[in-house]
Amino acid sequence: MAEFELYCFAQSGNSYKPALMLELCGADWTPRKVEFMDGETRTDAYRDVNVMGEAPILKHGDLTLSQSGVMLDYLADHFGRFGAETPDEKREIWRWILFDNHKLTGYTSVLRFMRAFMKTGETPVVEFLDGRAQNAYRVLDKHLNGRNWVVGDRLTIADLSLCGYLFFQDEIGIDFAEFENINAWLDRIRALEGWKHPYDLMPGHPLPS
Amino acid sequence: MAEFELYCFAQSGNSYKPALMLELCGADWTPRKVEFMDGETRTDAYRDVNVMGEAPILKHGDLTLSQSGVMLDYLADHFGRFGAETPDEKREIWRWILFDNHKLTGYTSVLRFMRAFMKTGETPVVEFLDGRAQNAYRVLDKHLNGRNWVVGDRLTIADLSLCGYLFFQDEIGIDFAEFENINAWLDRIRALEGWKHPYDLMPGHPLPS
Repeated sequence: MAEFELYCFAQSGNSYKPALMLELCGADWTPRKVEFMDGETRTDAYRDVNVMGEAPILKHGDLTLSQSGVMLDYLADHFGRFGAETPDEKREIWRWILFDNHKLTGYTSVLRFMRAFMKTGETPVVEFLDGRAQNAYRVLDKHLNGRNWVVGDRLTIADLSLCGYLFFQDEIGIDFAEFENINAWLDRIRALEGWKHPYDLMPGHPLPS
Repeated sequence: MAEFELYCFAQSGNSYKPALMLELCGADWTPRKVEFMDGETRTDAYRDVNVMGEAPILKHGDLTLSQSGVMLDYLADHFGRFGAETPDEKREIWRWILFDNHKLTGYTSVLRFMRAFMKTGETPVVEFLDGRAQNAYRVLDKHLNGRNWVVGDRLTIADLSLCGYLFFQDEIGIDFAEFENINAWLDRIRALEGWKHPYDLMPGHPLPS
């Protein structure tokens, strides 16, 4: 049995965050596919494990963790990698993880789900989410101006959180050409030893047609 | 000059989170009103202080903090109150702060702004946000079943985060009657010594008509 078990699925950028962290740390981990598209996260059995009804879930020994930000922080401590080196950095990392969850991943994930999987077309809700997501990208792009990484001068779990959905650019349906700093930063992440696209790192791609 | 300065405004549930924390801790703090309704958070001057363009901002000595979750964690350490006592509690507190930012406050704040201040009427976007917010309330209500507080058996910063917008129930436009556990929990918070409603704790209420 692997040391870490991650409840995840290929289409989930939130699952990708700890999956990529585990991979970059060389962890002994195994995916446990969540049947999200079939409604597993809405079942009572799933909600008994995570009342929030979300993927991912990370199991490590007796611990069961949910919320990708909590997992990233836990894994950074466990492996001594990609975490904060000072209290200032710790606050800055959490600041960006919170911004990501609320504004960047929060809006992007629903937008991409509606456009790429529900295929709702350009409804008012899609337009609303598109505008909100672009606002978040502008903030991140401006922050990355003159920086290689989101916090400090090295990869941290803040980068791993913020990039969660951004390798699905073609599915999000927003033109990223204007976000030059984001694109250069994503290229730096792609160049990391051990990097994999979410569709190559987690089970469930492609979806059954 | 007060020890803590909080950039905030009365209508902001996100500002209320650290404001209530400061008040409950008996801190020497002063509010600095953010002219949100006049667009101050979108100005270059404001974004030079917080690139995310959000309220609140907390100043303490040389430190300038943004993101309410970061402030709550910082203040819990500073005052030794309402924080975690074990690593398990620390993870559980962050888990609920993340859920709050993403799912509960995230959707509630925009929903309430559209209904109460923009007065958009029941647009598709309002209906979308209403459904999302109700999902989040259901999760919290279920979690609070048989519990007095969100984490452990005492008030923590997880409670202070999650309650941020929930004293504006009449402005959110959702019937809270079914969320019995949330209502009982909010009554417990109201009963805390030093508790004040956001409109009595921060400047800017009522809005000019």
